[in-house]
Amino acid sequence: MAVPIILIVALIAGIISIVLAVYFRSLVLKEDPGNERMQEVAGYIEEGAKTYLKVQYKVLGIFVGVLFLVMLFLLPNMTNPGTLNWEQAIAYLIGCVGSMLAGWLGMYVGVKANTRAAQGCTKGTKAGFDVAFFGGAVMGLAVVGVALIGVSIIYWIFQSPLVVLGFSFGASSIALFMKCGGGIFTKTADVGADLVGKAEYNLPEDDPRNPATIADNVGDNVGDIAGMGSDLFDSYVASIVAAMMLAAAFGVAGIIKAPFANVTLTTIGTSVFIVAPVVFCGVGLIASLIGIYIIKYKGSEEPGKALNTGTYLATLIYFALSAVITIFLSIGLGDDEMWLLWRIWGTSVIGLISGIVLGFTSDYFTRDDRKPVQNIAHAAKEGHAVVILSGFSYGLLSVVPPAIGVILAMTIAFWLAGVFGVAMAAVGMLAIVGTIVTNDAYGPIVDNARAIAEQGELGDEVIRTADKLDSAGNTAKAITKGFAIGAANLTVMALMFSFAEEAGITVVDLLSVNVLVGAFIGVVIPALFSALLVLAVQRNAAKMVDEIRRQFEENPKILTGEEPADFHKTIDIATKGSLRELIIPSIISITVPIGVGILFGVASLVAFLAGAILSGFVFAVFMSNADYSLFRAKSISGAWDNAKKWIEDGNLGGKGTEVHKASITGDTVGDPFKVFGIENQLSMKGHRRTKYKHAVSSDVVDSFDFHGFTSNVQWRSWVAWKLTCSILVQDILTNK
Amino acid sequence: MAVPIILIVALIAGIISIVLAVYFRSLVLKEDPGNERMQEVAGYIEEGAKTYLKVQYKVLGIFVGVLFLVMLFLLPNMTNPGTLNWEQAIAYLIGCVGSMLAGWLGMYVGVKANTRAAQGCTKGTKAGFDVAFFGGAVMGLAVVGVALIGVSIIYWIFQSPLVVLGFSFGASSIALFMKCGGGIFTKTADVGADLVGKAEYNLPEDDPRNPATIADNVGDNVGDIAGMGSDLFDSYVASIVAAMMLAAAFGVAGIIKAPFANVTLTTIGTSVFIVAPVVFCGVGLIASLIGIYIIKYKGSEEPGKALNTGTYLATLIYFALSAVITIFLSIGLGDDEMWLLWRIWGTSVIGLISGIVLGFTSDYFTRDDRKPVQNIAHAAKEGHAVVILSGFSYGLLSVVPPAIGVILAMTIAFWLAGVFGVAMAAVGMLAIVGTIVTNDAYGPIVDNARAIAEQGELGDEVIRTADKLDSAGNTAKAITKGFAIGAANLTVMALMFSFAEEAGITVVDLLSVNVLVGAFIGVVIPALFSALLVLAVQRNAAKMVDEIRRQFEENPKILTGEEPADFHKTIDIATKGSLRELIIPSIISITVPIGVGILFGVASLVAFLAGAILSGFVFAVFMSNADYSLFRAKSISGAWDNAKKWIEDGNLGGKGTEVHKASITGDTVGDPFKVFGIENQLSMKGHRRTKYKHAVSSDVVDSFDFHGFTSNVQWRSWVAWKLTCSILVQDILTNK
Repeated sequence: MAVPIILIVALIAGIISIVLAVYFRSLVLKEDPGNERMQEVAGYIEEGAKTYLKVQYKVLGIFVGVLFLVMLFLLPNMTNPGTLNWEQAIAYLIGCVGSMLAGWLGMYVGVKANTRAAQGCTKGTKAGFDVAFFGGAVMGLAVVGVALIGVSIIYWIFQSPLVVLGFSFGASSIALFMKCGGGIFTKTADVGADLVGKAEYNLPEDDPRNPATIADNVGDNVGDIAGMGSDLFDSYVASIVAAMMLAAAFGVAGIIKAPFANVTLTTIGTSVFIVAPVVFCGVGLIASLIGIYIIKYKGSEEPGKALNTGTYLATLIYFALSAVITIFLSIGLGDDEMWLLWRIWGTSVIGLISGIVLGFTSDYFTRDDRKPVQNIAHAAKEGHAVVILSGFSYGLLSVVPPAIGVILAMTIAFWLAGVFGVAMAAVGMLAIVGTIVTNDAYGPIVDNARAIAEQGELGDEVIRTADKLDSAGNTAKAITKGFAIGAANLTVMALMFSFAEEAGITVVDLLSVNVLVGAFIGVVIPALFSALLVLAVQRNAAKMVDEIRRQFEENPKILTGEEPADFHKTIDIATKGSLRELIIPSIISITVPIGVGILFGVASLVAFLAGAILSGFVFAVFMSNADYSLFRAKSISGAWDNAKKWIEDGNLGGKGTEVHKASITGDTVGDPFKVFGIENQLSMKGHRRTKYKHAVSSDVVDSFDFHGFTSNVQWRSWVAWKLTCSILVQDILTNK
Repeated sequence: MAVPIILIVALIAGIISIVLAVYFRSLVLKEDPGNERMQEVAGYIEEGAKTYLKVQYKVLGIFVGVLFLVMLFLLPNMTNPGTLNWEQAIAYLIGCVGSMLAGWLGMYVGVKANTRAAQGCTKGTKAGFDVAFFGGAVMGLAVVGVALIGVSIIYWIFQSPLVVLGFSFGASSIALFMKCGGGIFTKTADVGADLVGKAEYNLPEDDPRNPATIADNVGDNVGDIAGMGSDLFDSYVASIVAAMMLAAAFGVAGIIKAPFANVTLTTIGTSVFIVAPVVFCGVGLIASLIGIYIIKYKGSEEPGKALNTGTYLATLIYFALSAVITIFLSIGLGDDEMWLLWRIWGTSVIGLISGIVLGFTSDYFTRDDRKPVQNIAHAAKEGHAVVILSGFSYGLLSVVPPAIGVILAMTIAFWLAGVFGVAMAAVGMLAIVGTIVTNDAYGPIVDNARAIAEQGELGDEVIRTADKLDSAGNTAKAITKGFAIGAANLTVMALMFSFAEEAGITVVDLLSVNVLVGAFIGVVIPALFSALLVLAVQRNAAKMVDEIRRQFEENPKILTGEEPADFHKTIDIATKGSLRELIIPSIISITVPIGVGILFGVASLVAFLAGAILSGFVFAVFMSNADYSLFRAKSISGAWDNAKKWIEDGNLGGKGTEVHKASITGDTVGDPFKVFGIENQLSMKGHRRTKYKHAVSSDVVDSFDFHGFTSNVQWRSWVAWKLTCSILVQDILTNK
């Protein structure tokens, strides 16, 4: 079963992607890094981020080493039975290194792009946008490029999806640590900085006197760039591997079963279907590249639209290019297989469309000109708590549309091409992940740029420009988030099917109590995992708060600006804390699946996975949307508050008029949001959007975001873990 | 297959129970109803509650009538195939009437007991406690008595568990409406009363000038007494029926499969196993009666302990009595069947023990002298939002222990006696439900008593006594809530198994995409249902708020107390709103299961059910415990706040001392809770616990409670619905 030459498309796309990433990096680096103070701040951020990554990678190194040995000596070699499992172990190592590399590359540019984007803002919106966008693109292209090159080469050499699975394990183990660790770091710093600095000492956002300011900015880089990068790297690789493994398994069985029509597979057909996921991803990468290249932001329109236009463009280009590649792939196939291939193309198209639809629905639930957010803002008339409750209700409600989207995509894909179709829908949804990561990484860069502009004292005009860019990042994020959650969901479903196929489980019967128990544990686990991570942030943030208070108390000159705050100490707390707090979640994530497998059997493990996938989906969408919608509702009400004050200053007739009365109602509405500690920022600094964002960020809203992402990342990582562990379990069970 | 004579035990227990209920009712009624003002207020409450129930029952009457016809003409008669389905339809009708009757009886006494308990408080804690306790016992005994008599007689006459299933359908359709409708009513009134009355006009809790005060008290009766009663009536009957149906199905198959040992069933054995659930419940009822009778509250100890002692006593008595009855039941059985019977006794014991354990864990997570609540209170140092987040995190964490409890009970019961064992564990857990309902109904009675004492101007001393009794209700509630959630979970699992058995589904394979989709929809549904109900409350409360404002604005004499507020109007709003807002949830609860069945098949329907059960469990425990723990944390911090003020008044050295500093830290901790609007109540009225309770009650905390109960009740009702609907679906599918 030779490897079809068309796989070269993916390899070439991967290489182009890396070349372009390097080129964009050079574009960014040759920009002006701004004045001395800016460079100093950027230097601190860079140093902090690198220190964190070094410590993190060192710990990960030991972990990876141990797991490498476990895989090498304890796992059975399923490709060449009876020999040492060296192929998979080495692929695992490459996957780990690849994920770290992608994270490192992206972050390395991120910490350079921030100050340059800030400086760009002095020239105008376009200059700032371009730097941030290219900076983000480096991350996007590095992630996809490294993943595609890794998958293609490993498959080319070993010709076994099971070896590629090793690569995927590597990506997963890094993602689990990078995303959770980065998340704990960034929230610790963020919460700490806001609680003491803003709430107690009335310092503005990003104030250089606040000892946690730099740590906060470092957090954006290690959490939102490096962490997110390794997370999507993991998803991307997992979706490809799941589809490849299924194709290989069906190839062995000689048939792909689907309600539409069963298709008997030939050897050549099997080899085409195995590489199809990789090739489609290659085409998707090319579509992303063209999309990124075509985006020409003119500086006049809303920058968020430019980002979304890139997404739509990439989608359309993918449809066309993947149709062309399907023609090439079908060369030499019989009629049945050819039509199956077209149906598979169809599933990838459906997957991508449903990704866009998911993005739209999460956009609907979080946009300030749509009913949910408006209603939440109005609910404020009835008190603080009603606001939160209202946000939660809409968050819960917002689970329904994406669930319908995923269910539709799943059932249509299954109808067309069986479980392989479901896997290919996931692949389709993630095909343009290069664009998604680019838009996502753009966010923390402009966020940092704004902070540097503030600390470099570039003036209000420049900060307003930076704010505008930052707001664009948020617009794009609503879409990319919906995408990411949907893709993760489909991917883990596909992984579940391929796991069952691999483990030889043909029935997972919910009427068997063992299976039901597995599902029960699975449904409960996201709750446990989220709770542990949020409590970890809380514990760690308390330490941060104490440290900041200590610095202010022991050295009053920090507050007057005469002496610099000790940044290193706060970065150190965030770094150490994030690693320490990872221990228990990691142990749980390794032991629970093993425990379920040993106690209740492998079928129960599949049910455990299904339970975790479904309940994880509900938690992820609910928390992510509740977060965003509350945040938006708060900005609306912030604007109302300002309107009242403005009228009281004598505008529109001043106090006592009907307009004033109306504005008071508006203010009453906005009032409850003040419990989040927003009022100081509002009165001090006008209504800059970023201000609100950060005033909120220390609070419920951001923590919910964190909640959301933990439940989101956890199932992806869990699935991978469970896969690894289940193989271990199988090994143990068969050997005893 | 004759009906074993031992079934008479259940019938007799049921009859004794009703006789005792009537006796307790007369005990309550002959107490002094207090002064004229108190009787007037109690009269308003009674009138409002009756009006609500009349309107509700009228609408329900139409609904029940339609469903009766559907069952009669459209459902196949599975007992006597080919004939009209009259047995099941009539049993359905009896179930509906029985549920309404139990609710009505309990509420009828509740609205009489409140003023008498208030008057009792003038004589002391014991007198007040006794009236409220006997009032609650009427509800507890009526629920269990009506249920047991209904089940025994129907089975005796028709000798078919499927006919008893009709009775259970009736209980479920009433519960869905009564619990949700009552819930919307009570929260609408509560939120409305607090938001305008307390927040805007600074009126104290239960102030007669507040137009929504009476509606609020009515809500306690229709929601917490009548609604809760029909809810537990439903659970109780469902657990019995599920076990009976399984026994009958296994009897037909001639074998009960269990990991411990398969047992071949004889005809006589089958008939014994079919009545065993009813007989065990009869024994449980006797145990409850003895427990209720034995409780002698002396007036000196903590009244909450007396309630809990009753629960423990009933549990121990159940163990002994059920062992005795097992000896009787085993007469005439062969060795194999006899030992199976003992194993089944064991599963019921395990079920009841795990119920107690669940109660303890929810007690741990919600007690103010335990770590979770203490930590939540301390989190307040870091800001408001951290408090909420912390409460949520512990709420999420608190899902784990009860899940482990249920899983353990389930697996051990399954090991001992297969899925029949699981069903019997549910029966065991609900065996002492008479005690549970008694303790639960005690709560709203003392809550009302307190309000009447306030409005009847009985003075601070009496109100403090009423507060003490109220606090006891809360202590008991933590335990009964854990119980109710666990029992509901096991019951619906058992129902799911019996449904599958009945529908002839032998495998529900999660690897089939149809089944996976069913599970997916099931997991999402609790989120949708909760969101809809909470949004309904919000919409309705907004109307209530407008009406209260209108009354105060149009007639200023209401505020001065010169003219009475218009209670009827607010009760009318709550009544109509609660019915109107039920329409969409009801339609969803009927159409979704039917839709899933038709589109994806009956196996998918089973998976749908499993998904809803598991995700409903997580939501119910999470929300209920987050609610309670936040509420308790708030009382702690309220105490801290008062400590500071007390020191500032010159005590313990006054301002500036170290003690004062420490108390300031305490106050900072308590501060964020003020966002809930507590500070007025605190400073105005000292630190009466009930004050806090109500200050909170309009807010997040109570709404979460509501959230919790909706997700809790919904799955029980859903299961019943799905059972009805699935039979419909099967009918449609087989006829086409």
